[in-house]
Amino acid sequence: MIDDEKFIRGNVPMTKQEIRILTLAKAQLRSDSVVVDVGAGTGSITIEAALLAPHGKIFAVERKAEAVELIKHNVEKFSVDNVEIICAQAPDGLKDLPALDAAIIGGSGGHLDEILDVLDGKLKVGGQVVINAITIQTTAAALDCLKTRGWSYDACTVQITRLERVGRYDLAKALNPVTIIAAEKN
Amino acid sequence: MIDDEKFIRGNVPMTKQEIRILTLAKAQLRSDSVVVDVGAGTGSITIEAALLAPHGKIFAVERKAEAVELIKHNVEKFSVDNVEIICAQAPDGLKDLPALDAAIIGGSGGHLDEILDVLDGKLKVGGQVVINAITIQTTAAALDCLKTRGWSYDACTVQITRLERVGRYDLAKALNPVTIIAAEKN
Amino acid sequence: MIDDEKFIRGNVPMTKQEIRILTLAKAQLRSDSVVVDVGAGTGSITIEAALLAPHGKIFAVERKAEAVELIKHNVEKFSVDNVEIICAQAPDGLKDLPALDAAIIGGSGGHLDEILDVLDGKLKVGGQVVINAITIQTTAAALDCLKTRGWSYDACTVQITRLERVGRYDLAKALNPVTIIAAEKN
Amino acid sequence: MIDDEKFIRGNVPMTKQEIRILTLAKAQLRSDSVVVDVGAGTGSITIEAALLAPHGKIFAVERKAEAVELIKHNVEKFSVDNVEIICAQAPDGLKDLPALDAAIIGGSGGHLDEILDVLDGKLKVGGQVVINAITIQTTAAALDCLKTRGWSYDACTVQITRLERVGRYDLAKALNPVTIIAAEKN
Repeated sequence: MIDDEKFIRGNVPMTKQEIRILTLAKAQLRSDSVVVDVGAGTGSITIEAALLAPHGKIFAVERKAEAVELIKHNVEKFSVDNVEIICAQAPDGLKDLPALDAAIIGGSGGHLDEILDVLDGKLKVGGQVVINAITIQTTAAALDCLKTRGWSYDACTVQITRLERVGRYDLAKALNPVTIIAAEKN
Repeated sequence: MIDDEKFIRGNVPMTKQEIRILTLAKAQLRSDSVVVDVGAGTGSITIEAALLAPHGKIFAVERKAEAVELIKHNVEKFSVDNVEIICAQAPDGLKDLPALDAAIIGGSGGHLDEILDVLDGKLKVGGQVVINAITIQTTAAALDCLKTRGWSYDACTVQITRLERVGRYDLAKALNPVTIIAAEKN
Repeated sequence: MIDDEKFIRGNVPMTKQEIRILTLAKAQLRSDSVVVDVGAGTGSITIEAALLAPHGKIFAVERKAEAVELIKHNVEKFSVDNVEIICAQAPDGLKDLPALDAAIIGGSGGHLDEILDVLDGKLKVGGQVVINAITIQTTAAALDCLKTRGWSYDACTVQITRLERVGRYDLAKALNPVTIIAAEKN
Repeated sequence: MIDDEKFIRGNVPMTKQEIRILTLAKAQLRSDSVVVDVGAGTGSITIEAALLAPHGKIFAVERKAEAVELIKHNVEKFSVDNVEIICAQAPDGLKDLPALDAAIIGGSGGHLDEILDVLDGKLKVGGQVVINAITIQTTAAALDCLKTRGWSYDACTVQITRLERVGRYDLAKALNPVTIIAAEKN
């Protein structure tokens, strides 16, 4: 569990700690899991997954050059050697992956359906897909894609409000809610 | 119901529209209500109260000179003529008020207990006190003060998440939660 | 502002007080507004609208016989004489309505698009539509319908947590969130 | 990560899955951690901790006989052999514990200050205390106790809304919010 401020962030939005924890728990990683992180952003989820699966491998797929640089810097900062970065817009970049234990989708660029099609062929039976959505449209599309495929899922919206200490007071500061949708491949 | 961006705001924190609406509804204003707004800030609640009670009177109590200026500007902008601004740190400034139908407390500067003591002598029987709290300590103190006085209350925390349109998406953006505590004078 | 427990409810789900307040504020009712409440349920919104618009008229459209009976009982209990109940599945029942100042949609039975088509012909210019959604699919469909029509809207999800007094404690009890989407007819 | 419905629950309130995950992550358990779970309730946190620390030991302290029975049943169901149940009202029952890596406090029966006094003598330097609070008063008291002791903490309120599938819809159902306060012993 890494504090948010430990990551090198730049101007790229980052998944906050509590969301990372829940996302990774729902991805059910083991020490040897092979995982893809689609839309890896700053790489915060990639790094935590790499630490949870030291004998496994994490593929970080990210289309933006600026974000790819951040992932590289974070891989270096946290000294993880089981991360491979793929600079591509998914589903491009997914086709050559090995069999996967889990897929985490933090960004899909509007191609969720095609991404799930490719992942369907890569995930082991019982493998987990965990989608993080911050818009109504991505949430609705994800649920629709999963229903269509007949995959069972559980979904929840997580609203974290940090209590920030200001003198003798603790002030409620809301983080933006994230909907976490976890599905298991049939 | 006034949009947030219509108010002149400066750097003073402002109660957001949905919180204003609920606060004023719980204050049960009528067209001739006499109201005090303690810790009036930008005056956004004062202005809405003034419009809801055109035949009444709103006293805006605010200790900070910068905020008092904002209230003056907003009073002018919205052309309300039933507002009186009192530059003081409550409970100072409350003692000379007339009998009140409602008191709204957006800021108490840590003097909630003394403020409620003075308001107890000013509120008509059945008058409403509505407290907005953004810290754990103010919430706990308010509930404690009301229990001690034997005033019945209802309290809720309100978390508003705005859906902001970004192209074809609607992005969830959380506002900070506010606890609204409404009590009726015995 | 009526307390939830004042309404006759039966087994029909009821819009809670804070949601009623915000919904009606966003509908911008005046004392003479003509309003339709589509999917009126227990009639809690209908009754509050009828009290806010004593010189106007409220049409309550509801398809379920059990709910229609509840609305009748609540109309009687609150002695409002400006409500007309229409037992129909919208958009049926909307075609013969007069020109409307506001439409509130608490339930659409999956026919939101057709309902908005009919309301488009009934709403006065500047008239308000306020949709309450409790599912992802209704939220997404409503936003999509409004974007397609080019109507401007504001939308927010409202999460109310009641603080329930239990002895010397106040216990946080969450109500289910509701997304309120308010649009103005061009 | 165990599904909520897998636990034997009876009528005892249970910490929900997402809260368990975050609480245990913030407790920073390792495979050999020695942990106390104060106010263990159904034992859901105890069981998950026992699985996360197979080479460690979990002490479950609970005053209610009914809950102690549930913990025993859950220990048996999940076949964990590193749990010791102590039927006592904390701080009673804490004095004979060995040195601790972490303490999780789900219920304090109003004795939080005394409990922290005893834990202060038991926790290793760098040991974690994680408090789950569901009332305003417990939250305020916990923050106050930690400030007084000069322990640094981070605190957040977690609001989970489950999306429950109902036919083609996903309905938002809120769980009650829990405030998680994590502190590190100086």
